[in-house]
Amino acid sequence: MTQEFATAQDVEDAFYDALEEGDAERLRNVWESSDEIVCLLPMQPMLHGAEVHEAFRPLTSGEIRLDIQVRHIRWLEAGDLAIHFVEERVSFSGNPPQPPVYALNIYRKGAAGWRLLTHQNSPTPLPPGSGPPPGMATP
Amino acid sequence: MTQEFATAQDVEDAFYDALEEGDAERLRNVWESSDEIVCLLPMQPMLHGAEVHEAFRPLTSGEIRLDIQVRHIRWLEAGDLAIHFVEERVSFSGNPPQPPVYALNIYRKGAAGWRLLTHQNSPTPLPPGSGPPPGMATP
Repeated sequence: MTQEFATAQDVEDAFYDALEEGDAERLRNVWESSDEIVCLLPMQPMLHGAEVHEAFRPLTSGEIRLDIQVRHIRWLEAGDLAIHFVEERVSFSGNPPQPPVYALNIYRKGAAGWRLLTHQNSPTPLPPGSGPPPGMATP
Repeated sequence: MTQEFATAQDVEDAFYDALEEGDAERLRNVWESSDEIVCLLPMQPMLHGAEVHEAFRPLTSGEIRLDIQVRHIRWLEAGDLAIHFVEERVSFSGNPPQPPVYALNIYRKGAAGWRLLTHQNSPTPLPPGSGPPPGMATP
């Protein structure tokens, strides 16, 4: 049974809910059913298609419980694509939250409604006093 | 004098050419002229609008010469948006290339043709043998 999403925001809500619930089927259903999906996490290889679902498996194994706070930063919409910049604060199994990370989620509207097309995380700046920020090493 | 771009790829070529040439005016012209532009570099604050142009200023000051190799990974296009995942290898002032970084460039077609809307860099995995890869810390 697949859920249909009327808006990109509905997909985003379902994505983070499924992660918090560790619900593998629901998590898989938020993604577009295609080889074009992309997941990019810092220092990890870029993942495509079925690799994406594989990568999320540890988060739905029941061993880790996630609590995710999402803060919306910027939305861009054009036609059948929606681009959401958010900030995530994630706690694992009741521990204090990890440093916040930026996430860029891109949604696409297809025959089956809106679905998640790409998910990308980026580290945020170090907190003040924890050392000099790295230079602008690459354009 | 502003150049018009007929395709997203034309913008991308002009973006990296302008960086290599340190051409501030050309670089500014590849970006969409709006407050919606976003630049996100690892460990840096997310930049919007005029902040983006400010951030690139050191790269067009003439003090640093860049050589950028771009490898295309994946393109997604839908209507007036184009999403390009690429890998950049950047050399600074004739030094050996830095480790490669992923870049996600999003282009939007408007009244003035295609322009760069967002530019985001992400670190790639460490080379084999340089230590264990970090765990999948955040979804």
